[in-house]
Amino acid sequence: MKKLINDPQDVVSESVRGFGLAHPDIVKVSEDPLFVSRAGGAVAGKVGLVSGGGSGHEPLHAGYVGQGMLDAAVPGAMFTSPTPEPILEATKAADGGAGVLHIVKNYTGDVLNFETAAELAEAEDITVRSVVVADDVAVEDSTFTAGRRGVGGTVLVEKIAGAAAERGDDLDGVAAVAEQVIENVRSMGVALTACTVPHAGEPSFDLAEDEIEMGIGIHGEPGFERIPAAPADEITERLLNPVLEDLLVSAGEKVLLFVNGMGGTPLSELYVVYNHAKDVLDSRGVEVTRNLVGNYITSLEMQGASITVLRLDEALTELWDAPVNTVALRRGL
Amino acid sequence: MKKLINDPQDVVSESVRGFGLAHPDIVKVSEDPLFVSRAGGAVAGKVGLVSGGGSGHEPLHAGYVGQGMLDAAVPGAMFTSPTPEPILEATKAADGGAGVLHIVKNYTGDVLNFETAAELAEAEDITVRSVVVADDVAVEDSTFTAGRRGVGGTVLVEKIAGAAAERGDDLDGVAAVAEQVIENVRSMGVALTACTVPHAGEPSFDLAEDEIEMGIGIHGEPGFERIPAAPADEITERLLNPVLEDLLVSAGEKVLLFVNGMGGTPLSELYVVYNHAKDVLDSRGVEVTRNLVGNYITSLEMQGASITVLRLDEALTELWDAPVNTVALRRGL
Repeated sequence: MKKLINDPQDVVSESVRGFGLAHPDIVKVSEDPLFVSRAGGAVAGKVGLVSGGGSGHEPLHAGYVGQGMLDAAVPGAMFTSPTPEPILEATKAADGGAGVLHIVKNYTGDVLNFETAAELAEAEDITVRSVVVADDVAVEDSTFTAGRRGVGGTVLVEKIAGAAAERGDDLDGVAAVAEQVIENVRSMGVALTACTVPHAGEPSFDLAEDEIEMGIGIHGEPGFERIPAAPADEITERLLNPVLEDLLVSAGEKVLLFVNGMGGTPLSELYVVYNHAKDVLDSRGVEVTRNLVGNYITSLEMQGASITVLRLDEALTELWDAPVNTVALRRGL
Repeated sequence: MKKLINDPQDVVSESVRGFGLAHPDIVKVSEDPLFVSRAGGAVAGKVGLVSGGGSGHEPLHAGYVGQGMLDAAVPGAMFTSPTPEPILEATKAADGGAGVLHIVKNYTGDVLNFETAAELAEAEDITVRSVVVADDVAVEDSTFTAGRRGVGGTVLVEKIAGAAAERGDDLDGVAAVAEQVIENVRSMGVALTACTVPHAGEPSFDLAEDEIEMGIGIHGEPGFERIPAAPADEITERLLNPVLEDLLVSAGEKVLLFVNGMGGTPLSELYVVYNHAKDVLDSRGVEVTRNLVGNYITSLEMQGASITVLRLDEALTELWDAPVNTVALRRGL
């Protein structure tokens, strides 16, 4: 294992500290317990948005703290859910008096710990609602999950619900927007290589030299099929078609097409995938009106990509277009 | 070799086509000859900025085309300089009547081909000036270079000279700003792994399981030393100290600290490096007033990082802070 780290136990704390030092205009890092919140603190009267989960998926979630998106993010240890205590403290830091929405990826540890934190917050008179993102169509139930895993769709939920909160929607309204995104978003990923969790010291799974894994999870959880390495266009179709079928996308509909890198894939390859995915959608009569291409939810240095499709209407499009000023997503501010 | 590509010969054209399809609000792709220019065309009366070079370093350079930065970018084949013809066409597309500045990384092929293109453009009555970026302190002369190689400093030259052009500086003024950045910027990189050029099909060099290469070039050109894998803090100092010594940075000075990923390194590790680099600069009494952390000039899927330091004064700081709206760098717009 070769990594730009010191002691494997310190990667998350050192990395988050560096993140805070680099972006003091946008975020504030609280070290004990560890969470990241907006530099300016909670916005009075605005619904607060909190997300979190195991580290190793950067820029998710701390990279999305800032105006127009999250109010706080809670990084757990690598690929390990944060405990209720930092989630509770992040929830308090995000509370501007209008309640807090927890955006939770569907992994058993995350769901349980956010639930406990929500109960503790309620005991301190903070109203909390939760939404659970479960957009990965690859498998039902997985290593850390009952039901579908939460993956790329989470970034879109955070952006769009964040814009609704910024607009002044109340807690029920923001939660309803988040649920609308969740109902209309689906994803699937592929791994070309495995990744190595620092404290484990070896790859989380093995793939042969000429083998790729379809339906991989963002922690290296098994997909549904190992196939010989194939041309990008074929891989793109094998990811995109199940997503479109599960989402029941029809000709004439508008979508956001999100091609995400797993962390170790060159940006040029993500645009090769985007190029063909756009052609496939064009040929089905589906209009790609918005897009996102890059490394937005990763698995350390894993090579691979995921495709996420979100069905758009005018209301969601307007919220997607709203200004945002976070470290990883910045537009109009 | 496992990559998200189709025919290795088509990677660049398919990738750039996808890039154009994804960002029609910012860029326009011309396919034959291949170059990328601003969606809105040249800005009348503004100095045009053109850069380019071999592909495989994305988001450099096409990701920096847009308001406040480049007017056009010319992607060559993977790790191969573009020929004069597309550079000439990009120069014409960037010309708003106030002349064009070529920003060239110091590699022999790039320097020659930009020079030829500049002569051809002059023959068509476009005034062209050129600056050559040579910020890599690792080695004098290298595989593709007489003198020092141009690396991370190029991103800063493009941003700051782009802001000067946007402000309305004339060609001499923009070139002088670019030269000021070039004089005050230094870089060095480290490779943990090699990368594989698609049409070569195998890694461009070999590194043992426990070995890293200090002073690596962005095409995998040899550095000056192979050492056993070391903690991130030690690697950071081995990169940062020679940069500071070459730049003659003294206590009390202000700098921009740029920690760049080579493409395959997790973002979390770049912040571990930033964290310690910031501490080192603090302890030397050097004030980090601006920064950039992320994958901005890459070597395909290479794991590793580079550190770039730019000495700042008020004028450069103001230009760094100016609004920019490109695919890879966006702020204030």
